[in-house]
Amino acid sequence: MRGMTAPLTLHPDRLLPPDPGTREVARRLYEHVRDLPIISPHGHVPPAWIAHDTPFRDPTSLLITPDHYVNRLMHASGVPLADLGVGQGDLDEAASRRAFRLLCEHWGVYAGTPVRYWLEDEFAGIFGIDERPDADNADRLYDRIAAWIARPESRPRALLEAFDIEVLATTDDPLGDLADHAAIAADPAVRTRVAPTFRPDRFLEPGRPDWNALTDALAKAAGADTGDWAGWVTAMENRRAHFRAHGAVSTDHSHADLRTDVLDDAEVRRVYAAARAGSATPAQHRALQRHMLAEMARMSCDDGLTMTLHPAVARNHHPGTFEAYGADVGVDIPTAVEATRALQPLLARYGTHPNLKLVVFTIDETVYSRELGPLAGFYPALYVGAPWWFIDAPDAIRRFRRAVTESAGFTRTSGFIDDTRAFCSIPARHDMARRLDAGHLAELVVDHRLAEDEAADIARALVVDQPRKVFKL
Amino acid sequence: MRGMTAPLTLHPDRLLPPDPGTREVARRLYEHVRDLPIISPHGHVPPAWIAHDTPFRDPTSLLITPDHYVNRLMHASGVPLADLGVGQGDLDEAASRRAFRLLCEHWGVYAGTPVRYWLEDEFAGIFGIDERPDADNADRLYDRIAAWIARPESRPRALLEAFDIEVLATTDDPLGDLADHAAIAADPAVRTRVAPTFRPDRFLEPGRPDWNALTDALAKAAGADTGDWAGWVTAMENRRAHFRAHGAVSTDHSHADLRTDVLDDAEVRRVYAAARAGSATPAQHRALQRHMLAEMARMSCDDGLTMTLHPAVARNHHPGTFEAYGADVGVDIPTAVEATRALQPLLARYGTHPNLKLVVFTIDETVYSRELGPLAGFYPALYVGAPWWFIDAPDAIRRFRRAVTESAGFTRTSGFIDDTRAFCSIPARHDMARRLDAGHLAELVVDHRLAEDEAADIARALVVDQPRKVFKL
Amino acid sequence: MRGMTAPLTLHPDRLLPPDPGTREVARRLYEHVRDLPIISPHGHVPPAWIAHDTPFRDPTSLLITPDHYVNRLMHASGVPLADLGVGQGDLDEAASRRAFRLLCEHWGVYAGTPVRYWLEDEFAGIFGIDERPDADNADRLYDRIAAWIARPESRPRALLEAFDIEVLATTDDPLGDLADHAAIAADPAVRTRVAPTFRPDRFLEPGRPDWNALTDALAKAAGADTGDWAGWVTAMENRRAHFRAHGAVSTDHSHADLRTDVLDDAEVRRVYAAARAGSATPAQHRALQRHMLAEMARMSCDDGLTMTLHPAVARNHHPGTFEAYGADVGVDIPTAVEATRALQPLLARYGTHPNLKLVVFTIDETVYSRELGPLAGFYPALYVGAPWWFIDAPDAIRRFRRAVTESAGFTRTSGFIDDTRAFCSIPARHDMARRLDAGHLAELVVDHRLAEDEAADIARALVVDQPRKVFKL
Repeated sequence: MRGMTAPLTLHPDRLLPPDPGTREVARRLYEHVRDLPIISPHGHVPPAWIAHDTPFRDPTSLLITPDHYVNRLMHASGVPLADLGVGQGDLDEAASRRAFRLLCEHWGVYAGTPVRYWLEDEFAGIFGIDERPDADNADRLYDRIAAWIARPESRPRALLEAFDIEVLATTDDPLGDLADHAAIAADPAVRTRVAPTFRPDRFLEPGRPDWNALTDALAKAAGADTGDWAGWVTAMENRRAHFRAHGAVSTDHSHADLRTDVLDDAEVRRVYAAARAGSATPAQHRALQRHMLAEMARMSCDDGLTMTLHPAVARNHHPGTFEAYGADVGVDIPTAVEATRALQPLLARYGTHPNLKLVVFTIDETVYSRELGPLAGFYPALYVGAPWWFIDAPDAIRRFRRAVTESAGFTRTSGFIDDTRAFCSIPARHDMARRLDAGHLAELVVDHRLAEDEAADIARALVVDQPRKVFKL
Repeated sequence: MRGMTAPLTLHPDRLLPPDPGTREVARRLYEHVRDLPIISPHGHVPPAWIAHDTPFRDPTSLLITPDHYVNRLMHASGVPLADLGVGQGDLDEAASRRAFRLLCEHWGVYAGTPVRYWLEDEFAGIFGIDERPDADNADRLYDRIAAWIARPESRPRALLEAFDIEVLATTDDPLGDLADHAAIAADPAVRTRVAPTFRPDRFLEPGRPDWNALTDALAKAAGADTGDWAGWVTAMENRRAHFRAHGAVSTDHSHADLRTDVLDDAEVRRVYAAARAGSATPAQHRALQRHMLAEMARMSCDDGLTMTLHPAVARNHHPGTFEAYGADVGVDIPTAVEATRALQPLLARYGTHPNLKLVVFTIDETVYSRELGPLAGFYPALYVGAPWWFIDAPDAIRRFRRAVTESAGFTRTSGFIDDTRAFCSIPARHDMARRLDAGHLAELVVDHRLAEDEAADIARALVVDQPRKVFKL
Repeated sequence: MRGMTAPLTLHPDRLLPPDPGTREVARRLYEHVRDLPIISPHGHVPPAWIAHDTPFRDPTSLLITPDHYVNRLMHASGVPLADLGVGQGDLDEAASRRAFRLLCEHWGVYAGTPVRYWLEDEFAGIFGIDERPDADNADRLYDRIAAWIARPESRPRALLEAFDIEVLATTDDPLGDLADHAAIAADPAVRTRVAPTFRPDRFLEPGRPDWNALTDALAKAAGADTGDWAGWVTAMENRRAHFRAHGAVSTDHSHADLRTDVLDDAEVRRVYAAARAGSATPAQHRALQRHMLAEMARMSCDDGLTMTLHPAVARNHHPGTFEAYGADVGVDIPTAVEATRALQPLLARYGTHPNLKLVVFTIDETVYSRELGPLAGFYPALYVGAPWWFIDAPDAIRRFRRAVTESAGFTRTSGFIDDTRAFCSIPARHDMARRLDAGHLAELVVDHRLAEDEAADIARALVVDQPRKVFKL
């Protein structure tokens, strides 16, 4: 069979459970939700693409260069990130073709990964490719995708329609003017609700060398004097209000751990002043960061923005790569996380507040059954986030449901979140989640733990009702 | 189908593996153990119910108010605990009906949880209900259960017979006179062996504000002077002897971690004296607690009481709920636990003692394959406890067996323990464990790792022989 | 059926997935790799056996006494290790029979464990036994195995051929002269490549009381002055060169954690001098150990020896057993491990070095999806080791693949490693891994995540290509 082109097909039963009886139930459940619109309440698509309806440039910048999910396994296989376009600006066609060829040549290293699954879904389902990528057909596939890109129907706004994306959240800097969001909202041609997300990590880390400068910039953007703690709070509240006025429904936070603390008023004023004066100790920086995170929950109680937490990733693990290419190029590595004690100060204050929705994500799976399920099973404010990043993958999602359902059921989970900057992968990712939830529910039906009518209702709720409830859409 | 009553049935194959071939083997294995008597060597049923054969009051106090497994998911869904009767004393009928209606209205939030599984088993199997609870039929179901309660055959002693409970252990304070147990033992009408369990947690935590008062009370109850360490030891030994004289077979211990330490004699005398004098440091309190726990193992070597450990739960996580309702209302959240180093001092001394049986439970599943299986696979004294509390649930029990069997086999596990105060759920819980163990064994048979005759013997041993051996019944 | 001999058979489908459709695919994949030669790049078979072609002595010394996998569950069941021959020198026949009878009598305690699986494979597949061991047939089985041992075809060299072992790595002390390896290499009758492995743990632990003496001995063996740090480096490099000259392809390291650190030159010279002078603090001992481990990676970049890490086992957990019997008798208990931060200093320096192959093993399964998969999915130097020791077992291996494949695929894993001193179990262990990998791949095929032709290529690569690549064979 060597030298022949292998076919690429999408089997209608993919990811459904292997046992024929269970698969039959799963098929029916999946059918029930397959064609529902996509609600994407957390992701990383740049809003400018939609505001300007920017055409995609070429297959490599569409599928490879900006997507560290894709790049990292090639890097592990010895491919320099530069050869994939990372940090190289716009590639010329020859370089773009070379990068795309590298992907095709390395198709095998992705076997069994969700990247492979999503790419196959995109290749076959969106670009109409029916052969497995390899060194021989790389150029032909490149041409095919380039031709697809060139169609007017392939521009971002048309794809929002074609993908049936009802809600799309972006991730945005607190200082941003959100002009793109304003433009999108003002344009009746965009039917998708495109919402910014308030992501203030840098402003909450007083230990950063640039924190004082950022805090000054915050003051300017917010029209508030961040010279003291009360001013910082006002500035943050103002920026959140600006985001809410532009349609934001949530804030997002990613720190090294989940620790929250609540300092008393005098202490926080004192520590904040020291941080601003450059005289705070590392312990004070940490205390202030943890107080600030708890304070974000307080603000959410007041302004109703859902608060999402994405903790415990060691960013830029390889200094050489960071120096050469900067952040977000695939060298972020998860670490263990702790939730029960870390979130206790926040939950003690706000965990039963009727206006708070707090969604906790994790890559450390051990906290699902041990901590997050039990926490979400008591605190009305807390929801368990869908598997994130490295564990947004079929087997891990199965483990997630099996680990969380028994202590928290389905109503205490967030619904699926794609968390992606890979625009064309959005339908594949949501479809994957629907298939896997259908499979999990089918297992409960075949186990006689759940009736099929109820399973169908839950399958639908996970796609539609849970995200709407959790993100107040 | 809306508006119609959905049926509630118990499928005979529930929880058995989905693959038809495996299910057939599992069915045979389950049949082999289905009708064996229930041995419940650790639980929380109040002995007074049996001593006085107290009739249950109403459906809500039978099924909801005292059961934090049930209450917590309603609380997470926004229902105040007071509305479920928590902390409200005896409810009048209107309030009891309202609480029961809340359960029926929230039936959906339990989908996929063991609470739902157990309640269905009780509703259909004990109360004869054949419709799924909902807002419409709540009053009808309430009436049906109330009528069931009113029958003489529904009183606790009759249920002990009907449920075929051979052994039932309660959990008791060291100061208790065990009069209820004495009355039960003296009454030939009770054929169930009802055993108290010695649970001295409070007395082993010198950091508690009430520890000195408790230690004084201990002296009084034990007829020993707890003014020095030797006296404390004598007092504890006396109380254990009192428990043994009333049929106790085990002690139970639940602290923040599993850490044990053995201080030398002079040191423990000194630290104990400081604790009694109120001059001990937090570190000394901790050291004394850890020595006391190891000392409990020493006493078990001498008096033969099996020692069970239930570690690593952050109790009363939400202060507001604790202030309003007290302990044990569903706000205990698990934390990570460590066993290998923590238990080393205890095991170094007593781990090969022929008279010690030490059962270690965990909610942190990560220690099953990493620590508890390997420990139980070497130390003759140590047994791995069945999944506890949040992980006493079908998928978690499957993970438990798959995680522990490979390093420790079946003979190093405790057998099932229901650990419940929900009397009517006892048969459902034991039946669930039998089904899941049958399923696990069937998988090994179909995998050709085990012959079916041996699997049948093991299924029986897990129900009968292991608890008898581990708890010396 | 009691009293009758139960049959012992090896089902051709053992360990393949239960679902018939999946099993059919798995069967084909397994057929594809079943008869490939064995590559064993890490293990504990003594090279003297092969150099001298020493006949095995008796069934007990072949199967029981030296194998702590086997002994530990009997110890947990109350059998003294001495009764199994541990620490007793050569047993006479009566004692050997008694030990073998203990194994047969305790056959049941191994139910569901990989020890049982391997022993059945050896009993039926190698010794031709067709009845399940028990008290009645113990002597008969003993005789049968003794007769098998007595055959010329049962000597180690013949078995290397019969088992089709292409590569066999041993584990060796840095001071060893490797005379056995030289003899084997010089003998054309041995067609297996027998490679030593450099295992310098003791020399990298400056906190050990014998470290200075060991370091002196190292100087002597290496012909280098270990009086200062530069000399230590030279000495180590010399010994590694000696190993390479005798065919070594890897070094192996097992410390309490994975922590690496890189001290600056002046600091390491200073700390080394203090350690040699006996004036170093515990913190300096630790810092030096961690620097030394990182330095081993540096040497691997230079000399090309693959570096394997086996961390986080609490050795000799039970002091009484250690005092009576010494190390490696089954009282090593795993602990939690951390990789992301611990390996960062090493990976920052050498993680993208083209000449480094670093294989990280773990018994703590939690790091597979959280840390090792993500690390191996970025760093070209890092491979995830196959499940080790307590988790070299069917269900754990399944979990391993499901946890690692999604972030790292198959090409970032080590291939199977038997890690055993139980010579006759080597074929069973490799066969087990092939079956389980076939099963995992079949699940991906049935899930429609992988085409069957690709799965077949991967199955073969895991047996042949990955170990060759990772260990540069």
